[in-house]
This record gives sequence, structure tokens and C-alpha cells, in this order.
Amino acid sequence: MTPLLAEFVGTTLVVLLGNGVVANVILSKTKGNGSGLIVIAVGWAMAVFVGVFTVASSSGAHLNPAVTVALAVAGKFAWSSVPGYIAAQMLGGMMGALLVWLVYRNHFEQTSDSDTKLAVFCTGPAIRSIGANLISEIVGTFVLVFGVLSIASPKFGLGALDALPVALLVMSIGVSLGGTTGYAINPARDLGPRLMHALLPIPGKRDSDWGYAFVPILGSLTGGVLAALLYDLSCA
Amino acid sequence: MTPLLAEFVGTTLVVLLGNGVVANVILSKTKGNGSGLIVIAVGWAMAVFVGVFTVASSSGAHLNPAVTVALAVAGKFAWSSVPGYIAAQMLGGMMGALLVWLVYRNHFEQTSDSDTKLAVFCTGPAIRSIGANLISEIVGTFVLVFGVLSIASPKFGLGALDALPVALLVMSIGVSLGGTTGYAINPARDLGPRLMHALLPIPGKRDSDWGYAFVPILGSLTGGVLAALLYDLSCA
Amino acid sequence: MTPLLAEFVGTTLVVLLGNGVVANVILSKTKGNGSGLIVIAVGWAMAVFVGVFTVASSSGAHLNPAVTVALAVAGKFAWSSVPGYIAAQMLGGMMGALLVWLVYRNHFEQTSDSDTKLAVFCTGPAIRSIGANLISEIVGTFVLVFGVLSIASPKFGLGALDALPVALLVMSIGVSLGGTTGYAINPARDLGPRLMHALLPIPGKRDSDWGYAFVPILGSLTGGVLAALLYDLSCA
Amino acid sequence: MTPLLAEFVGTTLVVLLGNGVVANVILSKTKGNGSGLIVIAVGWAMAVFVGVFTVASSSGAHLNPAVTVALAVAGKFAWSSVPGYIAAQMLGGMMGALLVWLVYRNHFEQTSDSDTKLAVFCTGPAIRSIGANLISEIVGTFVLVFGVLSIASPKFGLGALDALPVALLVMSIGVSLGGTTGYAINPARDLGPRLMHALLPIPGKRDSDWGYAFVPILGSLTGGVLAALLYDLSCA
Repeated sequence: MTPLLAEFVGTTLVVLLGNGVVANVILSKTKGNGSGLIVIAVGWAMAVFVGVFTVASSSGAHLNPAVTVALAVAGKFAWSSVPGYIAAQMLGGMMGALLVWLVYRNHFEQTSDSDTKLAVFCTGPAIRSIGANLISEIVGTFVLVFGVLSIASPKFGLGALDALPVALLVMSIGVSLGGTTGYAINPARDLGPRLMHALLPIPGKRDSDWGYAFVPILGSLTGGVLAALLYDLSCA
Repeated sequence: MTPLLAEFVGTTLVVLLGNGVVANVILSKTKGNGSGLIVIAVGWAMAVFVGVFTVASSSGAHLNPAVTVALAVAGKFAWSSVPGYIAAQMLGGMMGALLVWLVYRNHFEQTSDSDTKLAVFCTGPAIRSIGANLISEIVGTFVLVFGVLSIASPKFGLGALDALPVALLVMSIGVSLGGTTGYAINPARDLGPRLMHALLPIPGKRDSDWGYAFVPILGSLTGGVLAALLYDLSCA
Repeated sequence: MTPLLAEFVGTTLVVLLGNGVVANVILSKTKGNGSGLIVIAVGWAMAVFVGVFTVASSSGAHLNPAVTVALAVAGKFAWSSVPGYIAAQMLGGMMGALLVWLVYRNHFEQTSDSDTKLAVFCTGPAIRSIGANLISEIVGTFVLVFGVLSIASPKFGLGALDALPVALLVMSIGVSLGGTTGYAINPARDLGPRLMHALLPIPGKRDSDWGYAFVPILGSLTGGVLAALLYDLSCA
Repeated sequence: MTPLLAEFVGTTLVVLLGNGVVANVILSKTKGNGSGLIVIAVGWAMAVFVGVFTVASSSGAHLNPAVTVALAVAGKFAWSSVPGYIAAQMLGGMMGALLVWLVYRNHFEQTSDSDTKLAVFCTGPAIRSIGANLISEIVGTFVLVFGVLSIASPKFGLGALDALPVALLVMSIGVSLGGTTGYAINPARDLGPRLMHALLPIPGKRDSDWGYAFVPILGSLTGGVLAALLYDLSCA
């Protein structure tokens, strides 16, 4: 697989399985309805596991613009490759969301609450407060990227054997720091599906909450860059 | 162990432990009654883990006709061995279901709802809609087989060390894509036990829902073949 | 560590942590009260994990008379060492139960139901039926020992790296086959604590249900021996 | 990273993620509110996993004064390095608690019960009884340190590959022995955040329960030293 195809496929898998578990837990009449945070946290962790091990050998499995940018800041990844990686990740995020909608379409129809339908696609805060929500995304992504830099092979990304540690890292962030904003910690995981929510003919949908959309993007990029800088400092 | 015996034993273990966890969660008066999706998803994942590590060194641990056919399509497994593998898997599926009935017989007697009894044996959709149900099984099996092809040793199947990644892959599919049809993603896991449901003298049982039986078979075979083709394409 | 001390220490850890999780989930006013089967299954699996990795290098970490006898039947362990191993395991089971009582003593006092107090020590069937209960213990232990024989190093037991696979095997048996009798699958785990229940001055305790005590012993030994014989046959 | 910086960073991560999961489960209006012991146990285990693998190569990842002292008693760690390690761990505990407060500040405001707010920072007993509470902390830390000594590399601490076994050990202690006092088993995890609770301007907070503060400290140090002595004895 070429690196860009790998980033697209890997991010598609992460969002298909990650947003898929949210759909299973919150949409009406699913078999997992109401099964709670443990299922969501395990589901997102395993989504990352599957995405990383499937494509790691081809692209280093960034699957997240915050990781790509942080690796570039840390001098481990060429800046010239950053735009392509981010584009592939964004398209993967959109494709994953599209597949979730395809699989759970009947359950979207059976769900009346429009906030619930949006929540399958993208994150939203438990208590809306831009400053605090930004801090949450910054801290969460800081832990993610600091951990990834500790795990990553010296060159430019993750290997297949890194899939399990990274998945457990994501599980940790999810259960521990996800209580406030739902841990986007990845612009492609949030913006890609949010675009899909806007585009798809979902019956009874609300607006895509564009006023909040910059928080997961700005927060995760900031957290990732801070992690790269502090990792460099502390290990220099 | 001969490969065919290994496929029989491995599939027996997968279905004994997989259908067993469903019995524990949904039948009346069990110790796990009502313990929810997290237990079912962990239970099926560990069932696959046990089945794969027990027989991988003998047969490559396909334990699933969709995997066997996909590996043949991908040129990794001889077509001449396909019928024997599928037969062994089907018999294993039936034997596993028989053992679950043996272990939980008193709890079948204590359970009044006939749909619940059937659900211990085979899958059924949360919302019946043949097209959407087929899509669910296709997408779920696509992810399974695409993942297995990424993990599999180059020759013809899985090794004992692949048991954990494959189990986590199945856990991921279960929590994320299983909310619609209950993730059969394996004809032997669905048809074998369904036959057993028809044959066994279960008190107060309903019909075996033969009108739905083709969905998990067609869906999983289609998803598996698509994954094999796209994996070949993307890695060519 | 000598092998016998290792078997004693390892079984003490397994029963301390295994019966400990039951105490946490079912006794009154604990922090884990009512947290359900997922916690119990994870707790027992991790108990086995800790017990096995702590002593595997010294004794092969049988920690279970059914495993010891089955390994002897399979010709992997000297019959002359069997009595010592079983005695050490039994004493470990009693010591583990004593420690659980010490840790949770105040919660035993706060718990009024005498069946609940007994259930912290030893297993009991969901539906009492000697024949069916025996079958459950036989099938559960068969899967355990068949799996252990697949994992075990060729000589006489488990190594530290086998701790995780064996723990996941126990988790699988717990969620899938434990719904009927509570998966003793180990005479030392059941008889040792049952003796402790009889000996300890637990306020408001009931009798130790000696009428059922032979079921986990006979069932697990039978299941283990059957697994050893069939493993030998199938791999000959 | 220098060893002291590593101990600070690692303990910060452990307490950020460990206390973070408690905040998510017990504070009002979080996404994880009421998700129970399984989430808390998984969260603390993964917190330890992240902390250990991130800094193990630099400091041996003690992250716990009870571990540091026990390793010194066992002759595996220089007594002259003990004070620095403990100071770094204490500061890490305080920093982690500060970050949890920062991330969950709005949810502290939405939570009316002052006991709940304290419980995010430090442990408290389910049934207050100094003797029994001490025994719980002693037994829990004994198992932790005995396990760490079995896992630890021969020199002075843990390696990155030990992160998963230690995390599972902590999960085991949490679900099995944490039902009484909430398993501090680490003075830095309890005293550091308790100090932070006293210092921070948390609206509607209660006192920091200093009458109980010595229990997790004395209990965990005692348990750790006993484990070191008995490990030495049993392996001599």
C-alpha cells in the first residue's frame, strides 16, 4: 500500500469502528443501546488497534493530523508530506462516517433526538465552555502524542507491534479525560464526520454545530505540538 | 492434529464459548443474566482467542468459511482444500451449539421466551430489513477478513501468536458493527447452530427463522471475498 | 522458590484475588457492590494472571489439582510429585480465603444474607441439579486443561509468558460457561475456601453446603483427565 | 530524561489519568457519570500502563514511594537515591491532581456533594475502621510489590515491556482488594492529591480528612517492605 492510501484506509477503519461503537450505544433499538462508557472506551481503543495494525507497515499509522503535525515538529516526519497525510486522513474520516451511516441507517430513522444523531458523527462538550473545552482537548492530545512519541519507532511513525500500546493509551485517555468533551483528540475524527453529517440526507437532523467545530481542531493540534516540544526538551 | 480435525475442534470451541456467553447473558436464572454487551463482546473475542491458539499450529485456524474462501480467493489457500475445511467448520459449529445446550439445558427450561432461546443459537436482526442486514454483515466481515489478511502469516492462515490480535479484531467488530444484526460474520457460527436449534428437542422452541438464514451466509461470504479482492488490489 | 512453596504462594494469590473480587461485588457496602459479572470475570482472570506469572518459573504454576492430575495423566508430570502439589494448592486455597476474610471482615459483618457470605468462599449452582452441575464443571475444566496443554511448555507446566493466555482462557470460561455453577474448575479453589468457611468464626454464617462440595471436585478432575486423554489422542 | 524528571512525569501521568477516571465516573454531568467500578479499574490500570511505558527506560518507573522503599530494602536500589525519587513522585502526584482539577473544573462546580469532590483526589474507606483499613492497604500493597519484584528487571526497576503486566496487576488489586479502602497502595497517589485538595480553591469543598491520611501511607509502606522481606526469604 502507498502511504497515502494507507492513511486513508487506516483512518476509515478507525472512524468506522469508533463512530460505529457510538452508534451502537446511543442510537435506538440497537443491540448495544445503553451499554455505557466501558463499551465506548473499549470500542474506540480497538478501533485504533485495528486501524494501526492494518496499515502501520505502509504509512507509520498516524491516522490523526495532530500526530502528523507533532511528528513534523519533532523532526521525525518531513513537512512536505504533511499536507498529503492530512488530506488522506480527512477523507478517511469522511468515508468512515459514511459507512457508519450506511450500516446504522435504519437506527438513525428510529432515533428521534437530533442531538443523539449528531453525537454519532462528532464530539460535543458535556458542559459548553470554550476555554475549559479547549483545555480538555489540549491535555488529552498532549497525553496521546507524548505517549506516541515514547512508543514510536525512531523514524516517522508506528509499527504493527505498537498497535496494542497505542490502543491502550487511547482507552486510558477515553475513560480518564474523555468525560468533558468526549475526547476528539484528532481533527480528522471530528471534522471529517461533521462534514459528512452536514452532507448526508439524515432524516430529522439538526445543524452540525459548526460553532464548536474549531475546538477539537485547535485543541488537538495545540496539545500535539506542546507534547512534541516538551518531549524534545525533556529528552534533550 | 490433522488440519480437518483442528478446524472441527477450533470451531467447536469458538461456538461453545461464543454461544455460551450469549446463553449466560440472556437465559433466565444464570449467573450472568442481564450483564450486557460488554460481557458478550468480551466473551466472543475470548472464544476466538481460545479457538485460534488451540489449533492454529495445525490448520491455520480459519474457523470460518468466509475466511477460508477469502484466503482461497487471495491465492493463499488451495481451492481443493476448501470443501473439507468448510465441512469441518460446519460440524464444529453444530457440536459447539450442542454442548452449549447440554451445559445450559436447565436454563433453557426456565426461559419462557422462544425468541430468546433461538438467539442463543443464531443471529437475528435488531430491525429486520434484508438489504440493510446484508450490508451490515458485508461490512463486518470485510473488516474481519481485511484484518486477518493483514495479520496472517504469508502462507495459509493464522499462527498461535495471531490469536490475540484476531480476538481484539472480533471484539472491535462486535461492539462497533454488531449493533444491527448481532455480527454473525461467519456462516459456520450461524448455520451450524441454527441446524442444531431445528434438530434439538428444546421445550417451547419457535421455528428456526430460516427466512433470515441466508443473510449471514451471503453477507459474510460477500464481505470476505470483497476484502480479499480489495486487499490484493491495494497491496499490489 | 521451591516448587511446593511456589504452588502454595501462587494458589494463595489466585484465591485471595479471585475470592476477593467476589467479596467486592457481592458483600454489602463495598466500593464494588453490584458491579456485576464483567468485574468478577476480569477479577478471576487477573487473579490467575498474577498467580501464574509470580510463580511460574519455580513450579510451572499448576495452581489447580485438576491441572496437576491432567499433566500427570498426559505423562508431562511425575505422579510422585502429585500429592505434594495438591497439598500445597489446598493449603494455598485455604490461606487465600483466610486473607479475603481478613480484608473484608467488616463487610461480612454488614452483610445479612448467609448465602452471600458462603458464596464469597465457594461455588454453588444457579439451579441445583447434580447431573447438570457436574456436566458444567466437566465441560469448563475440559476447556481449561485442553487449552493449558496447548499453551504449556513441553515439560511440566506453564512459564511466565503463558500467564496472559491462561488468564484470557479463564476469562473466556468464566463469561461463557460460568453461568450455571460459577466455574469452580479447580478443587483447591473450591474445597480449600469451603473448609475455611467452616472453620472461621463468621457471624451469622450458614452451613458450608457439604452436599454440593463433591461436584466441583469430581467435575473438575473428570474434565481435566478427559482433556488430557483427548489431547493425547488428537495429537498422536 | 533524567531519572528524577522521569519519576515526576510518570507519576503526573498516573495521577492525571487515575484521578481523572474517578472524576469522570463520580462528578456530575460528565460523560462517564455512574459508569461504575469496571471503568475505574480499567482506568487506573491503564494510567499505570501509560505512566510506566512512558518513563520506564529513564527511571525504572517506580512511580510509588512504597515501590522505591521496597526495592531499597530488597537491595535492588540505592538508599541514597530514595529521597529524590520520593520527592519527585510526590510532586508528580500533586501536579497530576492539579491537571485533573483543571480539566474537570466545571464539573466540580456542578457537583454539590463535598465528599464526592474529595474522593476525586484521595482515597477514603467504605467502612471507617483504622485497623481493618490498614490491613487492606497492607495486603494490597504486598501483592503489588511482590508482583513487581517478580516482574522487575534484576537491577532497579521496570522496563517498558513490564508496563502491561504491572497494569494488569494493578487492575487485579483494584477489583479484588479495592472494595474496602479504594486501594491507595501508593503514598504519592494519596498524599500528593490530598495536599492539592487542601490548597486548591474548590468551591464547596470539605476538609481534606487528614485524620485518615496516615493510613494509605503507613499501610502501603508496611505492605511494600513486608513483600520485599518475604520475597527475599522465599527466593533465598
